[in-house]
Amino acid sequence: MFDLNSYLVSKSNYINKSLDEILHDRLSSSRIVSAMKYSLMAGGKRIRPVLCIAAAEAVGGKADEVLPAACAIEMIHTYSLIHDDLPAIDNDDFRRGKPTCHVAFDEATAILAGDALLTLAFQILSSVELKNENYASKWLSVVNAISHAAGYQGMIEGQMRDVASEGVMLMTLNELEEMHSLKTGAIIEASIYCGATIGNGGIEQMKQLGIYAKNIGLAFQVADDILNVEGDPDIMGKAVGTDKNRKKSTYPSIVGINKSRKFAEKLAGNALQALDGFDNRSDPLRAIAGYIVERKK
Amino acid sequence: MFDLNSYLVSKSNYINKSLDEILHDRLSSSRIVSAMKYSLMAGGKRIRPVLCIAAAEAVGGKADEVLPAACAIEMIHTYSLIHDDLPAIDNDDFRRGKPTCHVAFDEATAILAGDALLTLAFQILSSVELKNENYASKWLSVVNAISHAAGYQGMIEGQMRDVASEGVMLMTLNELEEMHSLKTGAIIEASIYCGATIGNGGIEQMKQLGIYAKNIGLAFQVADDILNVEGDPDIMGKAVGTDKNRKKSTYPSIVGINKSRKFAEKLAGNALQALDGFDNRSDPLRAIAGYIVERKK
Repeated sequence: MFDLNSYLVSKSNYINKSLDEILHDRLSSSRIVSAMKYSLMAGGKRIRPVLCIAAAEAVGGKADEVLPAACAIEMIHTYSLIHDDLPAIDNDDFRRGKPTCHVAFDEATAILAGDALLTLAFQILSSVELKNENYASKWLSVVNAISHAAGYQGMIEGQMRDVASEGVMLMTLNELEEMHSLKTGAIIEASIYCGATIGNGGIEQMKQLGIYAKNIGLAFQVADDILNVEGDPDIMGKAVGTDKNRKKSTYPSIVGINKSRKFAEKLAGNALQALDGFDNRSDPLRAIAGYIVERKK
Repeated sequence: MFDLNSYLVSKSNYINKSLDEILHDRLSSSRIVSAMKYSLMAGGKRIRPVLCIAAAEAVGGKADEVLPAACAIEMIHTYSLIHDDLPAIDNDDFRRGKPTCHVAFDEATAILAGDALLTLAFQILSSVELKNENYASKWLSVVNAISHAAGYQGMIEGQMRDVASEGVMLMTLNELEEMHSLKTGAIIEASIYCGATIGNGGIEQMKQLGIYAKNIGLAFQVADDILNVEGDPDIMGKAVGTDKNRKKSTYPSIVGINKSRKFAEKLAGNALQALDGFDNRSDPLRAIAGYIVERKK
C-alpha cells in the first residue's frame, strides 16, 4: 500500500535540501539572499515540485534528473507569492503563518527578492550538466514551457484578472475557470510536463499526463476556494473568509459549497482515469489527486 | 568612413520592429500587454541589444541569428527600469520624458508588467528555431549568462546596494565601482558575450570582447553620473541633479567632474585597444565606445 504522507515528507525534504544548497553560497550574507531564503524556506507544501518529480517517476525517469526543474518551479511559485502579497496587489501581512516578505524586510527588498527568485529559476534550468546534446534541447523546451506558463499568457494574466475582479463578484463560471487555469493551472501543468519531458515520457503518456494535470490543477483551486470558506486558520497558517470579505468570485460563491465539493471530486476522478494506462510507478500521482481535494491546508 | 548614427538608427529600427512583433498577438487588448508595450516602446536607446548585434557581427555572425537574444536583453533592461521606478524603490514619475509605468497604469500593473517582461525574455530565448543540437546548448548558455547577469549575483544585487547607499554618500571608489559593475556592467557584458557566442566567436575573440565589455560597461556608468550633473534635461527627457539631491555616491561626488571625464575617456581607450586584433567588422563596437562617453542622453 502506497503511503502518500511518507512520500510527501521524503520528497519535500529532498527538494528543501536542494533549494537550501542553491542559496548557500558566498553571497549568503547579503540582504537580498536573506529575503529570498526567508520566503523560499517558509514551509510551503512543495506540491508543484513534487508533481514534477512524480511525473518523471511515472514515466520511468529519475528524481535527481528533474530536480533542477522541480526547484526552479518552486522558486517561481515563491516569487509569485511574494509579489502577490505586496501592498499594491493583495496587501497580505501573513503567509504560511509568518510575516510576508515585505513585512519581514521592506517593500523594495520584497520586489527585488521576487525578481531574483524568478531570475534564479532560469539560471538553475540552464545550469544543468549536459549529458548529451539531445539533452540541451530538452532543457530549452523546459525553459520555454515554464516561461510560457509563468508569463503574460499564463500566471501573470491570471493574477491581473484576479486583481481586476476583486470587489466585483460578477464572474461567470467560465470566466472563473479561465482565470484559475491561467493563474494556477498553467504552472501546475508545466510542472508535470517538464517532469515527464526530462523523464523521457512517450507521446501517449504525455497526452494522458496533460489531462491529469489539467484536472488536478483546477481541482486544486476549487479545493482552495472551499478551504477559504471552511478551513481551519490554525492549520492553514493564514486567515479564512478573505475571499468573501474581498468580494471575490469563487466556486462556492457561484455554485455553492456542496456543488463545489462534488466538482472537485469529479475532477480528481477524471485525473485518476487519465492514469489508467500507467503502472504502479504512477501511484504517487494517483494519491496526490486524492490529497489535493481532501487536504486541510 | 563608418557612420555610427545611421548604424544606431537602422539597428534600433530593426530591434523595435522585432519587439513590436513579439507583443503583437491575440492578447494585445489585455491591460498587462498594454503596460508591457508602453514601457518597452517608450523610446530607449537600445544600446544593450545594439551591442549584442554588433558583437555578433564583429566575429562574423549575423544580426538575425542573435535577434532573440538582443530582444530578450532589452526586455530585461525595461523590466528593471519599471521596477526601479516604483514608489517603494526610486519613486520616479518620469522616464524618457513620459510618465513611468506605475503612473500611466497603476502600481500592481507595473509590478506585474515588469515580471511579465522578465519572464517573456526567457520565453523568447527558448523559442529559437533549433538548427541543430549544438545550437541548443549555445542558447542554453545564453539563458545562463543572461540570468546570471540579471539576478542576485548581478543586476539585482547592484540595485540593492544602490538603494542602501542612497542618502549615505559614504561609498569608496571601489565600492562604487563594484556596485556599477553589478548593476549595469554585468548585463552589458552579457549582451556582448551572448552576441559573440551565437555569432561563433573564437576563444581569443571572446576574451578580448570581455575586456571591451568590462571597460565600456563602466564607462557607460561614469558618463551617466556626469550627465546627471551637467546634462540637459530637455535632451535627456529626465531630471538632472537627482543624484546630488538623493545624496548618492557618484564618480563626480567622489573624484570630481574633471577626473570623472578623464576616467571615462581612459576606459573607452582600453575598450578600443581590446579590439586591436579585429577587422573592420568591429567598427560599430569601436564607434560605440566613443559614443558612450560623448553622448548627451
